[in-house]
Amino acid sequence: MNKHRSPKIAVDAMGGDNAPGEIVKGVARISSETDINIVLVGDTEELKKILDKVEHNRKQIELVHTETVITQHDSPKEALRRKQDSSLTTATKLCGKGEVHGMVSAGNTGAYVLSALKHIPRIDGVKKAAIASVFPTWNQESRKKTFSLMLDAGANIYYNVEEMVQLALMGKVYAADLKEINEPKVALLNIGQEPHKGGEPYRSVYKILNEIDEVNFIGNIEGNDLLRGKTDVVVAEGFVGNIVMKTIEGAASRILDLGEYAYKEKFLWKMGLLALSSGIKQLKSFTDYSEYGGAPILGFEEIAIKAHGRSNSKAIYNAIKVAAKTYRDDVCGTMSRLISDFEAHFQTK
Amino acid sequence: MNKHRSPKIAVDAMGGDNAPGEIVKGVARISSETDINIVLVGDTEELKKILDKVEHNRKQIELVHTETVITQHDSPKEALRRKQDSSLTTATKLCGKGEVHGMVSAGNTGAYVLSALKHIPRIDGVKKAAIASVFPTWNQESRKKTFSLMLDAGANIYYNVEEMVQLALMGKVYAADLKEINEPKVALLNIGQEPHKGGEPYRSVYKILNEIDEVNFIGNIEGNDLLRGKTDVVVAEGFVGNIVMKTIEGAASRILDLGEYAYKEKFLWKMGLLALSSGIKQLKSFTDYSEYGGAPILGFEEIAIKAHGRSNSKAIYNAIKVAAKTYRDDVCGTMSRLISDFEAHFQTK
Repeated sequence: MNKHRSPKIAVDAMGGDNAPGEIVKGVARISSETDINIVLVGDTEELKKILDKVEHNRKQIELVHTETVITQHDSPKEALRRKQDSSLTTATKLCGKGEVHGMVSAGNTGAYVLSALKHIPRIDGVKKAAIASVFPTWNQESRKKTFSLMLDAGANIYYNVEEMVQLALMGKVYAADLKEINEPKVALLNIGQEPHKGGEPYRSVYKILNEIDEVNFIGNIEGNDLLRGKTDVVVAEGFVGNIVMKTIEGAASRILDLGEYAYKEKFLWKMGLLALSSGIKQLKSFTDYSEYGGAPILGFEEIAIKAHGRSNSKAIYNAIKVAAKTYRDDVCGTMSRLISDFEAHFQTK
Repeated sequence: MNKHRSPKIAVDAMGGDNAPGEIVKGVARISSETDINIVLVGDTEELKKILDKVEHNRKQIELVHTETVITQHDSPKEALRRKQDSSLTTATKLCGKGEVHGMVSAGNTGAYVLSALKHIPRIDGVKKAAIASVFPTWNQESRKKTFSLMLDAGANIYYNVEEMVQLALMGKVYAADLKEINEPKVALLNIGQEPHKGGEPYRSVYKILNEIDEVNFIGNIEGNDLLRGKTDVVVAEGFVGNIVMKTIEGAASRILDLGEYAYKEKFLWKMGLLALSSGIKQLKSFTDYSEYGGAPILGFEEIAIKAHGRSNSKAIYNAIKVAAKTYRDDVCGTMSRLISDFEAHFQTK
């Protein structure tokens, strides 16, 4: 636990579709409502102008000036070479040097991952960094909305056995903290329930996760069960994890479109407005990413949170709170100890 | 074209959750409404009893007696060894011997694929059979519901470059026939739009599909665009194709559940019943698999259609019609010529 110190989080003010306005507003609210300190990185002139218009606690916000911005359209590799002093890179460097306890950016995902790999020390033994994306689930039995973590959601493409087992370990630690539960359930995304499904590396990963005490492994999970809230953590290679996360996002948005369209077309608006809009509102809240505070890039000694590209101030506010909580609860330290225990455990076999 | 002869289709009467009742009813309707001949394979005593209760044209239905049934819970390999005279295997053998022009089963998918591989001749040059699943799409611009084909949806796990190019060729021919269009659009499922995304085999497959005239290739497609109706055919390795198809199915069903639940909980039923139920009905029709007649297992000289395990009589009726149309339009012959042209084309390079 790091409860004795107030967390200090670096925030990339210039990344994402709604930067810097919504980012600064999220930070302003953090400074008013919490004890979290922020290092806000971006064009300071512009940032000050926005801050002037919103309630905030200036003492908790330090400004760091940068001039270049990596956009969503930049090629990650090229951007890192050409824009070494961008807001994203600068925040990552602050994080790597230990000047802050974690960071948040809604910017270019690929550049973020590469920059973190370059500037933030990796946890000993971790082979690959992974993005852990939150997706909403709906448990029919408990009649409760909840959420699961998918990792890797696209930091890397392919994984070997050891790397996938590490996904399970990191995911378990992060989920336990985020959901405040003791033994999060972990499942392996696969094409069937049976232990032998999916060929390698899946069979071996299944076998190891099934054997070790460190993970509460519930077996393979198929695509149709993902949204049923059966598991807290879904382990997947980045290729399939990325495609599945985007498919869920796309499916939710398509079905909402279609519902709204059907509704409008039928000219039932006078009669059923209240009923239908309430239904659609429920569905929308089900898929509202801003509730969940973004996706951490796991595997580093500090927490690096990727907020959604379309983040509004609420999403940024939540992402910063998650980063601070992760620091307070020493999530990265716990991850590091678990991964090193696990390596020792397997070497003595 | 094979328009001169009435098609003859073998139907596994015993496969699927609603067998044999719904299967026989679908067949009965086919015999009354079309010129398609059916070889209905299963427990003849039981089949006759069901037929007696429904309108049908007895002249178009030939019964073939079998006693064993492969269930959804059987392990495919073991089932094929122990139940060599099952309804599924018998239908596949009829198809392989050329006694029928195609077949339909709603039974065990794994056993179906293995049985087809064993008994139905493969198209020359085809390396791997593939399941082509239909999924519903919604094109916002044209405001039209339509559908796309995903292949492979899980007949195999991994693919190499040549095998994936063959998926594009087979998918294109089948989609052209099913949708009655000339140059179906083909896209490659990937983690990004750019040609270099996804590593191998994706980069090479992208390059080849982009070069050849045989395929109207529109580039990579990401998960969030799958339901937007941008493409007619999606090429994917079976591992990711299977998981994505099930994810779409699961997402649609979860969101409908949630909508209905939200609606019931709010006690708005009196007020908004008509409006909301119309909306939900629209959404349900969007995901009604029975409209699309099942998924063909492509790569064979005859068409083998896998109907959904939960098929009702309408789904079976549609699956048989698709099998007959595929035969009339000589889809397997066209596929065979295209694949052999393509091989020749690449060998001369």
